[in-house]
Amino acid sequence: MSLLVLKFGGTSVGTTDRIQNVADRVLRLRGEGHAVVVVVSAMSGETDRLLGLARAIQTRAEGRELDVLLSTGEQVTIALLSMALEARGCPARSYTGGQVSIVTDSAHNKARIRSIDDHRIRSDLNAGRAVVVAGFQGIDEEGAITTLGRGGSDTTAVALAAALKADECRIYTDVDGVYTTDPRVVKQARRLERITFEEMLEMASLGSKVLQIRSVEFAGKYNVPLRVLSSFEEGPGTLITTEEERVEQALVAGIAFNQNEAQLTIQGVPDQPGVAYAILGPIADANIEVDMIVQNIGADNTTDFTFTVNKNDYEKAMEVLGRVSSTLGARKVAGDTQIAKISVVGVGMRSHAGIASRMFETLARESINIRMISTSEIKISVVVDEKYLELGVRALHDAFELEREPAGQS
Amino acid sequence: MSLLVLKFGGTSVGTTDRIQNVADRVLRLRGEGHAVVVVVSAMSGETDRLLGLARAIQTRAEGRELDVLLSTGEQVTIALLSMALEARGCPARSYTGGQVSIVTDSAHNKARIRSIDDHRIRSDLNAGRAVVVAGFQGIDEEGAITTLGRGGSDTTAVALAAALKADECRIYTDVDGVYTTDPRVVKQARRLERITFEEMLEMASLGSKVLQIRSVEFAGKYNVPLRVLSSFEEGPGTLITTEEERVEQALVAGIAFNQNEAQLTIQGVPDQPGVAYAILGPIADANIEVDMIVQNIGADNTTDFTFTVNKNDYEKAMEVLGRVSSTLGARKVAGDTQIAKISVVGVGMRSHAGIASRMFETLARESINIRMISTSEIKISVVVDEKYLELGVRALHDAFELEREPAGQS
Repeated sequence: MSLLVLKFGGTSVGTTDRIQNVADRVLRLRGEGHAVVVVVSAMSGETDRLLGLARAIQTRAEGRELDVLLSTGEQVTIALLSMALEARGCPARSYTGGQVSIVTDSAHNKARIRSIDDHRIRSDLNAGRAVVVAGFQGIDEEGAITTLGRGGSDTTAVALAAALKADECRIYTDVDGVYTTDPRVVKQARRLERITFEEMLEMASLGSKVLQIRSVEFAGKYNVPLRVLSSFEEGPGTLITTEEERVEQALVAGIAFNQNEAQLTIQGVPDQPGVAYAILGPIADANIEVDMIVQNIGADNTTDFTFTVNKNDYEKAMEVLGRVSSTLGARKVAGDTQIAKISVVGVGMRSHAGIASRMFETLARESINIRMISTSEIKISVVVDEKYLELGVRALHDAFELEREPAGQS
Repeated sequence: MSLLVLKFGGTSVGTTDRIQNVADRVLRLRGEGHAVVVVVSAMSGETDRLLGLARAIQTRAEGRELDVLLSTGEQVTIALLSMALEARGCPARSYTGGQVSIVTDSAHNKARIRSIDDHRIRSDLNAGRAVVVAGFQGIDEEGAITTLGRGGSDTTAVALAAALKADECRIYTDVDGVYTTDPRVVKQARRLERITFEEMLEMASLGSKVLQIRSVEFAGKYNVPLRVLSSFEEGPGTLITTEEERVEQALVAGIAFNQNEAQLTIQGVPDQPGVAYAILGPIADANIEVDMIVQNIGADNTTDFTFTVNKNDYEKAMEVLGRVSSTLGARKVAGDTQIAKISVVGVGMRSHAGIASRMFETLARESINIRMISTSEIKISVVVDEKYLELGVRALHDAFELEREPAGQS
């Protein structure tokens, strides 16, 4: 008998009919001999309804009491799903985050899990019950209710799977798996049977928003096999797993992209120790997150410094950079919001040379000018003019033959 | 500095605007130097919304999971009220029943409070915080969420006031106090300054539904001064207190009445030991609650037996009585749903004779036939034809001069 942790998001439990469907699915899996723990989110729309109430009271709702409020959303779902299971003759028991107990730090609205006490769940599983746990929430050392921040239900599921040493953690979503790239851009995009944790992290953080990043990190760290699949259709989805378990080494897993960034450049700053901090320190102080950073040697002992930020932070970042520029005596400050980042992701890069050159060659053949390059062990990212985004992604998807099933994968 | 426990029901916290009003009231009381603990219900409509969800899943929702579901209603209110207090610069902290912790038995949907741990609330009060507690809910010894049944928030407030040895427990409702009778029937009905716990119990159980009976019992048992007052208007309300603290002994506190009962009679049953049990045993087995019971000596060693039940149970009770009648060889079974019960309530009856005769005289003068009489230490109840209800109540209110302030009361 294998132990599965299933996670259903807000859309999958958005109505009482859908909750009935989830109950049916749990029954099927139990019928196949699996022990099942289910993690659920609030019914879709519920969190927004609660936030609306909070904002009617306090314009900027946050902190301890917001967590008391929001955590009711998942509590409603666990009760309804447990009722649906019991109505089908399946013994079930629901737990809030505090009841499990999932102990977190005290950072309200964005708490991190510290420990999970699995003894209640284990004894329920031993007694043949299905266990339903509220996602997204926990309790701090003082007994105050905390929440993990939006999307935290994925993290709850993975953390529970790790604590229970589950055979698989299944995240049911409204997509049927992880694709080689966005099917809306490249219609030949193919669902991946498997992807490594590291590739998934790069794909997710670069714009293929299927799973919450923190849950993938967690799954990788504790080696929890993670499967993304559709809550509305049958199908195997995509298994996210460690590199060793990959049957065949595809060079490239997929093409990720991101249109939400803007580029800022400060040119002709003195090339001396501390200059990067002098530029990025004030940016960080202004609470602006920086993504790509590139520094190039310029002329006359000066250097050019380029970085990208979220488009929402562009105006603020330009303002900060203007001040920094006069302090440092820089030559020029420039910026552009009409950019896109395209990334080729794959653990195969570690052992195979030539991927970067094939990427650059492909873009050159399409006359796409590369404005910025940044690389990591398993990813190469380029920044191009926004208008070339679709063309670039399609050309790369084609060049790396991602529409084809790699040999050796089923 | 005095300690007040305030309780606001669903109507009083039915919108975010009303929650703001409650916060203003808490601030005023704190401004007057009181320490304040607030118990709140779910926003009006919320419990019904949740029940609707439950019934969409399971026609007959009950048990453990229903409590998990319903308890979210008050949890939303405690969070919103605490936010409203903090937005006004008043430090506040909210607690669910489980967090306090209010420990109950495990009778889901109708649990009874066993103990309250007051150390968190005390330390918050010592730190100058307002404390907001979810009414209606607790936690059992195994840590499962329980609810006290509808109206249980009153009980939570009284139990907290008893545990904290509060100076007063104030129940804010949509009426401004307890009246000598229903003002819709007698427009001269007068708000009582004070009433004893025992009188309140008789008034409440007889149809003046202002407070949950259990909370009054609880307040009487632990001697918690209880005040009923309006959440929408200023005013002193009615103080419910022990007999000793009554400044002046009014003979009669008020006139209660009830139109929800039906009368059943079985005539000519053998007058021998065990006959009452032979009749009422099967009624109890059918889960029918009996209110008044009267037995009279009949002719020829037989007896007549009359009792009242809720109108909803009338058909079922007649059916049971038909079966009992043939077993006992009774002469006749009869019933009537067109009846009303009128009760005169007052602790003064204990020491003053003549109240019963004045009551019967008054009804006789109005040509109202009395069908049934039942008395207790502080109450006399009569059953009359339903059509005489208003006339009887008005005549008695007048006869006992209830429109007048008794001498000695302020």
